[in-house]
Amino acid sequence: MKRRVCVVVTARPSYSRVKSALQAIAQHPNLELQLVVAASALLDRYGTTVDHITNDGFQIAARVYMLLEGENLVTSAKTTGLGIVEFATVFDNLKPHVVVTVADRYETLATAVTASYMNIPLAHIQGGEVTGSIDEKVRHAVTKLANFHFVATEKAGERVIRMGEDPKTVFVTGCPSIDLAAQVKARPQMDFDPSLKYGGVGARLDSTNGYLVVMQHPVTSEYEVARRHITETLEAVRELDVPAFWFWPNADAGSDGTAKGIRVFRETEHAPQIRFFKNMGPEDFLQLVSHSRCVVGNSSVAIRECSFLGVPAVNIGTRQAGRDRAPNVVDVGYDRREIAKAVQAHLANGRPAPSTLYGDGKSGQRVADLLATVPLSIEKRLTY
Amino acid sequence: MKRRVCVVVTARPSYSRVKSALQAIAQHPNLELQLVVAASALLDRYGTTVDHITNDGFQIAARVYMLLEGENLVTSAKTTGLGIVEFATVFDNLKPHVVVTVADRYETLATAVTASYMNIPLAHIQGGEVTGSIDEKVRHAVTKLANFHFVATEKAGERVIRMGEDPKTVFVTGCPSIDLAAQVKARPQMDFDPSLKYGGVGARLDSTNGYLVVMQHPVTSEYEVARRHITETLEAVRELDVPAFWFWPNADAGSDGTAKGIRVFRETEHAPQIRFFKNMGPEDFLQLVSHSRCVVGNSSVAIRECSFLGVPAVNIGTRQAGRDRAPNVVDVGYDRREIAKAVQAHLANGRPAPSTLYGDGKSGQRVADLLATVPLSIEKRLTY
Amino acid sequence: MKRRVCVVVTARPSYSRVKSALQAIAQHPNLELQLVVAASALLDRYGTTVDHITNDGFQIAARVYMLLEGENLVTSAKTTGLGIVEFATVFDNLKPHVVVTVADRYETLATAVTASYMNIPLAHIQGGEVTGSIDEKVRHAVTKLANFHFVATEKAGERVIRMGEDPKTVFVTGCPSIDLAAQVKARPQMDFDPSLKYGGVGARLDSTNGYLVVMQHPVTSEYEVARRHITETLEAVRELDVPAFWFWPNADAGSDGTAKGIRVFRETEHAPQIRFFKNMGPEDFLQLVSHSRCVVGNSSVAIRECSFLGVPAVNIGTRQAGRDRAPNVVDVGYDRREIAKAVQAHLANGRPAPSTLYGDGKSGQRVADLLATVPLSIEKRLTY
Amino acid sequence: MKRRVCVVVTARPSYSRVKSALQAIAQHPNLELQLVVAASALLDRYGTTVDHITNDGFQIAARVYMLLEGENLVTSAKTTGLGIVEFATVFDNLKPHVVVTVADRYETLATAVTASYMNIPLAHIQGGEVTGSIDEKVRHAVTKLANFHFVATEKAGERVIRMGEDPKTVFVTGCPSIDLAAQVKARPQMDFDPSLKYGGVGARLDSTNGYLVVMQHPVTSEYEVARRHITETLEAVRELDVPAFWFWPNADAGSDGTAKGIRVFRETEHAPQIRFFKNMGPEDFLQLVSHSRCVVGNSSVAIRECSFLGVPAVNIGTRQAGRDRAPNVVDVGYDRREIAKAVQAHLANGRPAPSTLYGDGKSGQRVADLLATVPLSIEKRLTY
Repeated sequence: MKRRVCVVVTARPSYSRVKSALQAIAQHPNLELQLVVAASALLDRYGTTVDHITNDGFQIAARVYMLLEGENLVTSAKTTGLGIVEFATVFDNLKPHVVVTVADRYETLATAVTASYMNIPLAHIQGGEVTGSIDEKVRHAVTKLANFHFVATEKAGERVIRMGEDPKTVFVTGCPSIDLAAQVKARPQMDFDPSLKYGGVGARLDSTNGYLVVMQHPVTSEYEVARRHITETLEAVRELDVPAFWFWPNADAGSDGTAKGIRVFRETEHAPQIRFFKNMGPEDFLQLVSHSRCVVGNSSVAIRECSFLGVPAVNIGTRQAGRDRAPNVVDVGYDRREIAKAVQAHLANGRPAPSTLYGDGKSGQRVADLLATVPLSIEKRLTY
Repeated sequence: MKRRVCVVVTARPSYSRVKSALQAIAQHPNLELQLVVAASALLDRYGTTVDHITNDGFQIAARVYMLLEGENLVTSAKTTGLGIVEFATVFDNLKPHVVVTVADRYETLATAVTASYMNIPLAHIQGGEVTGSIDEKVRHAVTKLANFHFVATEKAGERVIRMGEDPKTVFVTGCPSIDLAAQVKARPQMDFDPSLKYGGVGARLDSTNGYLVVMQHPVTSEYEVARRHITETLEAVRELDVPAFWFWPNADAGSDGTAKGIRVFRETEHAPQIRFFKNMGPEDFLQLVSHSRCVVGNSSVAIRECSFLGVPAVNIGTRQAGRDRAPNVVDVGYDRREIAKAVQAHLANGRPAPSTLYGDGKSGQRVADLLATVPLSIEKRLTY
Repeated sequence: MKRRVCVVVTARPSYSRVKSALQAIAQHPNLELQLVVAASALLDRYGTTVDHITNDGFQIAARVYMLLEGENLVTSAKTTGLGIVEFATVFDNLKPHVVVTVADRYETLATAVTASYMNIPLAHIQGGEVTGSIDEKVRHAVTKLANFHFVATEKAGERVIRMGEDPKTVFVTGCPSIDLAAQVKARPQMDFDPSLKYGGVGARLDSTNGYLVVMQHPVTSEYEVARRHITETLEAVRELDVPAFWFWPNADAGSDGTAKGIRVFRETEHAPQIRFFKNMGPEDFLQLVSHSRCVVGNSSVAIRECSFLGVPAVNIGTRQAGRDRAPNVVDVGYDRREIAKAVQAHLANGRPAPSTLYGDGKSGQRVADLLATVPLSIEKRLTY
Repeated sequence: MKRRVCVVVTARPSYSRVKSALQAIAQHPNLELQLVVAASALLDRYGTTVDHITNDGFQIAARVYMLLEGENLVTSAKTTGLGIVEFATVFDNLKPHVVVTVADRYETLATAVTASYMNIPLAHIQGGEVTGSIDEKVRHAVTKLANFHFVATEKAGERVIRMGEDPKTVFVTGCPSIDLAAQVKARPQMDFDPSLKYGGVGARLDSTNGYLVVMQHPVTSEYEVARRHITETLEAVRELDVPAFWFWPNADAGSDGTAKGIRVFRETEHAPQIRFFKNMGPEDFLQLVSHSRCVVGNSSVAIRECSFLGVPAVNIGTRQAGRDRAPNVVDVGYDRREIAKAVQAHLANGRPAPSTLYGDGKSGQRVADLLATVPLSIEKRLTY
C-alpha cells in the first residue's frame, strides 16, 4: 500500500516553497499525494494560488476557506483555530499516514497541531531557522510538534537538534524552493512579458536596462508602523529611478497598513517607474527575480532563492533577522536613504557568486524519498 | 495601573495546580486577576470545577464551553481549535497585559497560541518537564510560544534553557500545587468524611486501618488499550483487599475506554472495598491523599504533591515517564501482580521522608510577584 | 449525469426516519447518494449509529464530529454553529445538486442554513407538524429555508402552504419512518432476543406475558425539571410491575438531568422489571415496539410508527403537543398515577386499529422519485 | 431590576437602521443596553462602523470578529456558523433578558439562532417584508425563530400573522431607520462637505446644481453577473453626466465581482463626475441622500428612507423586488439605457410627496417601550 502524504498549502509563498516536493511526491511509486488547499491560497485578493496549483496538474483533495477578514492579531489567531477545527475533519476523512507542514506562517501551526493531536506523524519543512517576529515562535513550536525535520541548512539542523530533537529525525534536505530556482536558472532568458501576462497596475515599465523587484511584508509585531515602513521603501525606489516590479504583501496581520501605504502613494504621488502586481506563477516570478538587478524588501526569497541565483538583495528591517545569509544580501533599516544607497552599491558591483547554502536544486526529491522510507512514528521525547 | 493577568483554567487538575497562584494574584496590590473558566471545568460530568472556583471566592471574567464530545483524537484537536477561536474574542474584550497558561493538557495550547498570536506576553507554569505521550509535544510547544517560564524544578529550568530560551526569562518558582499540599500538611487530621461530603458510588468503606487512593488516566497515544490497562489496576486493588478511594479520569481522548472498563467492572465484579468519586475540592482531595497509605495510578499528584507530603506512590505505565522523582515513587507496568506487589512493599515500609523537589509551599506568591514585576515583552529569539 | 443528493444524518432517530429513503436514493438510476454522518450519530455514548449505517451497506462520504459536550442550551447553539462551519466545507467539496434535511432536531438547522446560503436546493422531510419546545421553532425555520417539502400528512402540507410556501413545492409523501414499520409489520414474530443481542443493564426480563417500551427525552425548554419528569415515569413503571425495555435519551440539552434521574433510580431503588438499553438497530427496535403491549414516554415513535403498527401508546407531557394523532395515543401529564392508569387502560383494551395517517409504507421511494424529477431551483418568495 | 436588552450590530446599514432604537433603549429607565458589535462592522474595509458607534456615545459590551474572507457563498455560511459559536459565549456571559436582531442580512440569522437555542426571547425588527434573493429566506426564517415582531408596515404585519405568528406578538412600530430621516429632514441644509469630511477617491465634484447618490450591492444568488450589473450602472451614470456620490457595496457574497467592476472602470474609463466613498456616518449619509436629486441602485434606503424624505429613486433589478413601495420609486432592469432614462424622468419631474409608509419618525421609542413592557416568553406555536 502506498503511504498517503497529506500536504496543506495555505498561501502563495508556501506553494512556491514546496512545489518541487509536491511533484516528487505525486510521482513517487510508493506515495499518494493528498493536497489540501486552504486560507489565502483560495482567495482572489491574494492571487488565487489554487488556480496555479490546478494548472500545474495537481488534484486537490479538499478546499478549506478559513481566513478571517481583518488582517489583525485577533483574526490571525481565529484563522488558526478555525483551521484546526476544519483540518481535523479533513484528516479524519482522508486518513493520511503522514502530514507535511511548511515553514512558519501563523496558520501552518493549525496543520501541525491537528496532525499531532490526531497521532499522525508530522514532517516539517524549513525548521531550525532564526528570524524576527511571531514567525520565530511559530517555527520552533512546530519543531516541538513535528516528528521529522527536513531542514534547509546545516546550521538549521544543528539548532533543531540543540532544541532536543532526536538527530535521527533531522535531515538536511535543502529547501525545495531552491529546486524551482535551479530549473529557472537553467533557462537562458525570460519567456514571458510580466505586464502582458499578469496585467498589474501603475506605470508601463521599460526594463531593457534592468529593473528591481520589490516585496515588502508587514512585520506582525510592529503593526502600527507598517504604513511608515512601506512609505520609506516607496520613496527610496522612486528616488532611485530604476524600473521596479512591486508585489503586494501576503495575508498577514498588518498588511492593511502596508496596503494602505501603497494605495495612498499611488493616488497621491507620481511614480512613473513602479508597476504593482498581485501574484505570478512561481516559475514566472523566479524568472523575473533571476534577471533582476536587485531584489528589495523583506521577503525570504531575497535570502534563499537569490543566494542560489546570485542575485543581489537589499533586506530591510527585522523580518529576516537571524536567518543564515550568503554574501548576496545587504541589510538596512527602514530608511529611504539607507535603502537607496544599498541598492546603488549593488547596481555598481554587479552579481555576486551563487551559493548552495539553502540547497542544490534536488531537495524535493530528497523530501519525497524520505517520506517514502522513514519509519513512521509519533513517539518523541526531549533528548536531555 | 494594575497589570491585568488573565489565567485560563480548563480542567479540574489545572485548577488545583494554580489555586495558590490565583489567590496571590487576586490579593496582589499591583495585579488584577481575570479568570477564564473553560472546557471540562464547566461540566458536571467532570466534577463542575467551576463551582469549586466560585465557592473559593473567585470572580469569573468569562465562561467558555468548548469541549467537543467524543473523547477521541479528532475531538481533542477540534476542542483546541475552538478554544483558540473563542479565547481570541475573550482576550480581545478583556485586554490582559499578560496571560498565564498551566502545564501541558492538550487544550492549554489554545491559550498559548491565542496569547502569542495576539502579541500578549505569555507565562507558562510547569514547563521543562519530561513525560510520555502527546503531553510531551504540547508542553515543549508551549515553551517555544511562552515569554516567561515558571518552572517547578532546577532540572526543568535547565531543560527550558537548553531548548534555546533566554535564561533571564526562566524562574524556578516551584510548583504552586505544592502550596496547597503545604497548607494541608499543617493540619493534624482530616476535617471531613469523603462519602458523606461527596457521595460517590460503590462500597461503603471502613478506612480506620488505612486506605489507598487511585487515579488512573488513559494514555492518549495508546487509546485502544486503555480499557485493558484500567482492568489490571482494578484487579490489583481488588486482590489487595485494602479500602480504596477511586477517582474517575479527566476528559482526555481515551477516557471512554477507561470509563467503560470501570463501569463494566462495577456491573460484573464484586469489589466491596472500592468507592468511586468524580471529584473533590482540591484541599479535601489533598487531605485524603495526605492521610492515605499509598497512592496508585498514573496521576502526577503521586510524583509532585506526594513527594512533598511523604506519601508512598505506585506509578503505573508510561504517562509520567521522564518526570523527576523523589524516593516516594515506585514504577511498575500495566500488570496486576506488579501493581499489587509494589503496593504491598510500600505498606510494609511505611512513609518515606518528604522532599522539596517540586516546591517549598511558597510558589504561588513567587509567581504573583514575578507577574507584577517582570518587564513585559513579546520579543524572543532562539539563543543559539 | 446523476443528481448528487446529499443527506446529513446527525442522530439515531433521524437515521431511522430516513433509512428507506436512503435506500431508494442509493438504488435510484438517476441519483447518487452522498451520505454525511455527523454529531451524536458518530458517538458511542449515543449508540454509535454510524456502525448501523455502514452495516446496512451505505458508503459514508464524510464524517463530522461537531457535538459540544455539556448538553445544555449554550452547547446546543454552538454545536449548530460548528455544524454550519463544517458542512460548508463538506458541501463545497462534495458539490451536491440537492441537500436533504430531516425533521426538527436543533442541529438539523445547520444543514438547512448551510445549503440555503450556498445556493443548493434544500429538501425538508417532515415539515408542517406542530409540537412543543424549541423543535417548533426549528421545524418552521427550516420550512422557510427549504425549497421542497416532503411532508407526512395532509394537514402538515396545508400548514406549510399556509406559511406562504408555493403549493407546487409541497408533496405529501408520508413519512419514510413508516416504511420500516411496514416491513417489520409483515414479519410474524421477533427474530432476535433484545438482551442477548444488545446487552443492556438492569433486570433480566421475562417478557412472555407482554412488555412495555419506554422512551422519554428531556423537554428542552424545561431543562431543570427533566429529572423530576423522568422520576415520575420510573415510579409509574415500577408500580405497574410489567416488564419494561427502557431506552436512554438522545443527545439533547437536558438529557443529563434525565440521565441522572435514571442513574440515581438504578442505584437507589429496586426495579426488578426494567432493563435499560442505549440503542438498537432501527428494524430491531421497531420489532420490539410492534410486539409490545404499550409504548410509554414522549417519543414521536409512539405517535407515528405506533399508529401504523396499531400499538397503544401513552404520551407524557408537552413534547409531542400539537402533533396529529391516530386513536392509539392517550395523553397524560408528568404524574406517576396518571401514567400508570393510562397504561392499565391500554392493557385492558388491547390493540387499536392501525392507521395510515403518517404514511402507507412507500414514502422512501416517493421521496427518491421526487428528488430525481423535481425542477431544481433555489428561488422562492412568500406567496402572499 | 432593569431588563437587559442585547442588540447585535453586524454591519453598517444595520447600525443606521437601529440607531434611534439603540438611543431609546440606552435612555430608557427600565432597560439596560448590551451592544455587541461584530463582523464587517469592525472592519476598516467596510467603513469601521464601530468607530461611528463609539463616537455616538455607545458603550460596547463585546466585539466579535467573525467575517470569513472570500465574499462567496461558502464564506457567508461559515461566517454565520462562526457567529453562532461566538454569540453563544457572549450571551452566556452577558445573560440578556431579550435579544434584538435586525432585518435580513445573512449573518443576522446567527443572532436569531443563538438566542432561540439559548431560550432567550428574541425580538425581530423589519420582518414580514418581501424581497428577492437569500434575504427572503433569512427574513422569514428569523420570523419563525422570533418571539416578538416589530414590523415597519401594516402589510408586513399581516404577512407575519399569516405565517402563523400570534397577532399579540406583532407590533407595527414603523422602521427605526425613518427616525433618523425625520431628524435629518428637519435641518434646512447640509452641515458638512462630503469630500472634505470623508475623502473618497475619484473626481472632485461640483454639486451646486444637484447630484445623484448611487449604492448598488451584488445580488447574492446571481454572483457571477455582479460585475456586468455594476458596469451597466457605471455606464448609465457616466452618460447622464450629473455629479454622483457612489458608495462601495457591503460585505456580501459577490461584492468582489461588484468591487472589481468598479475598480476596473476607475482604472480604464474617464468618469469625471463620480466620486467613490466607503462609508459615512448615518446622519451625514441621510443628509446627502435628502438633498440629492435622485438615488440610484438597489439599496433599501431608496425605498424606505427616500419615501419618507420625498427623494426620487431608481431601483435596479431584483434585490428589492416585492418590498412595499411609495410613489417615489421607479423600477428598472440591469440596462444602462433604462437606468439613464428613469433618472432623467425623475430629474424632469422633481420631488414626489413624502410618505409615512415605513414610519413616522418615532419608531425607536416605540421599540424601546415595547421591549420594556411586553411579557417575556419563549413559548410559541403555529396558530393554525
